[in-house]
Amino acid sequence: MVIVGAGFAGLAAARDLTQQGHDVLVLEGRDRVGGRSLTGSVAGLPADMGGTFVGPTQDAVLALAAELQVPTIPTYHDGKNVILWRGGARPYSGTIPRLSLAGLLDIARLRWQFERLARSVPIAAPWDAQRARDLDGVSLQEWLRSVRASASSHNLMAIMSRVTWGCEPDGVSMLHAARYVRAAGGLDRLLDVDNGAQQNRFAGGTQQIAELAAAELGARVVLDAPVRRIERHGAGVTVTSDQGAAEAGFVIVAIPPAHRVAIEFNPPLPPEYQELAQHWPQGRLSKAYAAYKTPFWRANGFSGQTLSDRGPVFITFDVSPNDDGPGVLMGFADARAFDSLPPERRRHEALHCFASLFGDEALEPVDYIDYRWGTDQFAPGGPTAAVPPGSWTRYGPLLRKPVGPIHWAGTETADEWTGYLDGAVRSGQRAAAEVSALL
Amino acid sequence: MVIVGAGFAGLAAARDLTQQGHDVLVLEGRDRVGGRSLTGSVAGLPADMGGTFVGPTQDAVLALAAELQVPTIPTYHDGKNVILWRGGARPYSGTIPRLSLAGLLDIARLRWQFERLARSVPIAAPWDAQRARDLDGVSLQEWLRSVRASASSHNLMAIMSRVTWGCEPDGVSMLHAARYVRAAGGLDRLLDVDNGAQQNRFAGGTQQIAELAAAELGARVVLDAPVRRIERHGAGVTVTSDQGAAEAGFVIVAIPPAHRVAIEFNPPLPPEYQELAQHWPQGRLSKAYAAYKTPFWRANGFSGQTLSDRGPVFITFDVSPNDDGPGVLMGFADARAFDSLPPERRRHEALHCFASLFGDEALEPVDYIDYRWGTDQFAPGGPTAAVPPGSWTRYGPLLRKPVGPIHWAGTETADEWTGYLDGAVRSGQRAAAEVSALL
Repeated sequence: MVIVGAGFAGLAAARDLTQQGHDVLVLEGRDRVGGRSLTGSVAGLPADMGGTFVGPTQDAVLALAAELQVPTIPTYHDGKNVILWRGGARPYSGTIPRLSLAGLLDIARLRWQFERLARSVPIAAPWDAQRARDLDGVSLQEWLRSVRASASSHNLMAIMSRVTWGCEPDGVSMLHAARYVRAAGGLDRLLDVDNGAQQNRFAGGTQQIAELAAAELGARVVLDAPVRRIERHGAGVTVTSDQGAAEAGFVIVAIPPAHRVAIEFNPPLPPEYQELAQHWPQGRLSKAYAAYKTPFWRANGFSGQTLSDRGPVFITFDVSPNDDGPGVLMGFADARAFDSLPPERRRHEALHCFASLFGDEALEPVDYIDYRWGTDQFAPGGPTAAVPPGSWTRYGPLLRKPVGPIHWAGTETADEWTGYLDGAVRSGQRAAAEVSALL
Repeated sequence: MVIVGAGFAGLAAARDLTQQGHDVLVLEGRDRVGGRSLTGSVAGLPADMGGTFVGPTQDAVLALAAELQVPTIPTYHDGKNVILWRGGARPYSGTIPRLSLAGLLDIARLRWQFERLARSVPIAAPWDAQRARDLDGVSLQEWLRSVRASASSHNLMAIMSRVTWGCEPDGVSMLHAARYVRAAGGLDRLLDVDNGAQQNRFAGGTQQIAELAAAELGARVVLDAPVRRIERHGAGVTVTSDQGAAEAGFVIVAIPPAHRVAIEFNPPLPPEYQELAQHWPQGRLSKAYAAYKTPFWRANGFSGQTLSDRGPVFITFDVSPNDDGPGVLMGFADARAFDSLPPERRRHEALHCFASLFGDEALEPVDYIDYRWGTDQFAPGGPTAAVPPGSWTRYGPLLRKPVGPIHWAGTETADEWTGYLDGAVRSGQRAAAEVSALL
């Protein structure tokens, strides 16, 4: 069995199949494992440049982490959150910031409409939703307009779109948005810290999970081995990477759909698959970390959690190890405003965003680091696919439909927690089960 | 100088640069030159599976063909055309079939509205059109709805969309459609035989032009050399293909934008380029040829040119060498209905389409051949990009903007006859001129 990609999906598949006694070979194009989980370092502390958080019902990745003895810690959220909106910073509690009463009522209405709609979409077959064609015919933005969202509601949904799919609301199909939220268990689950997807994180970073899983697999994982060609023949497949050719009965391709374009299939995939890969683009999202001597905002009663309409940093979290220091702020940065800046300018902009939220102390970090997923060859982009209008109804049924001995994994192909580390693990396990049943 | 791709764009660039005395190396991923020009064979006669026709104002490809002494012949169009519409076949003359008077008036109005709109779009900077955001915010289909196109007009525009971009009207941005038509010189130029893009063809096929150009370049063209990596450094670039690494001051990447995803750039391209490549998908179009003892339809007074709403073959042309035989029908087939069929079934469907237009004699060919561009790894798809809403206004300014020593060619980057062989030649010449000015 050959597995293409040593992200969470590929490694989860390899682990399951190995445990069942099958031979596996995992070919990874990068010089590291983890895929969109990448733990860098800021002020000597681990800093997740990709997937970071974990929360309730993400049982697949939690179980994997537990087996590998990687502990979680709660996301810090004592104190006041801050929203910076139209130039004014205001504290608030919980997930929804303090807006005017009219603003809050509009958000409440929109949430209700969105959730009702999401519940109408069958996760495993969104193209079968009653209004599938209508919903897939419009972007999230067009939907917001059609339900007359207020400007504040629109801005909040835009922030959700940026952080969730790495795109503006006009870049993602409403059917995808609704399905995605349902796959996460609803808006609260997706957006919240308490009892939501941001509830916990891994103190040592998420990539260690991949590294430990890869260590167990040992020589079965080959780095610097981008796969160039997958040939099907009577007995299975020949998978050719920069490290040579491998024969196998099956191959699991555990990479983002958009990156499938980079592999030559021979005989060619059915043409619809080629089209799918060209219509399932990744979003783009960047991250900035600043480390300080202490988490000074905590002393002032702030949680470190913020929302901002100023940019380029538009959401922050406190990922400090403890109260005494160092203090670490993590910010999600709007790639479109951020990525094209030179390094010094990115640092400047991010620190000024932090300062607009927490005061001028934020301008003097002891360390700073950022990462732009849009420069990543293998992602390509991030955090996950920003599926445009039309793609689910046209190509959705093929997203993970095997082609002979070729099976598909990757978080984009998951039914639960699509786009998350948990979805990646589940997709790998599902593909392993498919193949296992045929062996 | 390294050139990636030995299609018409890459070869035109190589030719110009060589004539100016520069060293070039053309790396081609396929085992042949020509790109989306591929001449197969039916009943021993050349049959163009890709680019076929040439017409007035396509001066770049005409000049290249003349220099290489490749003659053109007129497209046969004596006799009656046929339209098969809602089950009934009717003869007509010219480009626009005989519909009801109301139908003709509606088509005339739509053409007028479309042309007026196309004239408002600056070809070299469509994002600067006065209504650029509005036009790029809707698909051709949404535009047709907004101007209340009749069902017949809609069907005719759908046929144009399928044959021009390889997509349904909901797959292409109205801004792209308008710009594309303007780049061809208007709807008549684009659609007509007489004085239009289908006026002539090359008796020996289009690929011979590429073959002759490549023969002149000799060992400078390397086949089976898919480019994997382009590294920029102080002195220029290192381009690594399956045939090894090459150093050069500049590289011209002459491949479809969608296929840029398959090349690793180091340092990475600015992230917007990665996004562009994921938002400039190719369409999908297929072709079927049937050869008969004679062009029997000619004897019955038919030109061989037809339009059909039945499918999968929806447009036909007579490409027979002469009246005495063999007779050769070329049909454009709707890839979505055609490509997934097994070979025998494709033949059956295509022949029955021909028979519905020309009678049962068409069921007994002496030879048959088809080609599905959706199965082509390097195209990927065809005939050209079906640019969806949003892409031109977001990414258009980068489409051919060089990144340091990396320059861009390919018919999608052309200002005149974008999507045609002529646009490909022009794009290669433009990229060669860019680089030449820097040498």
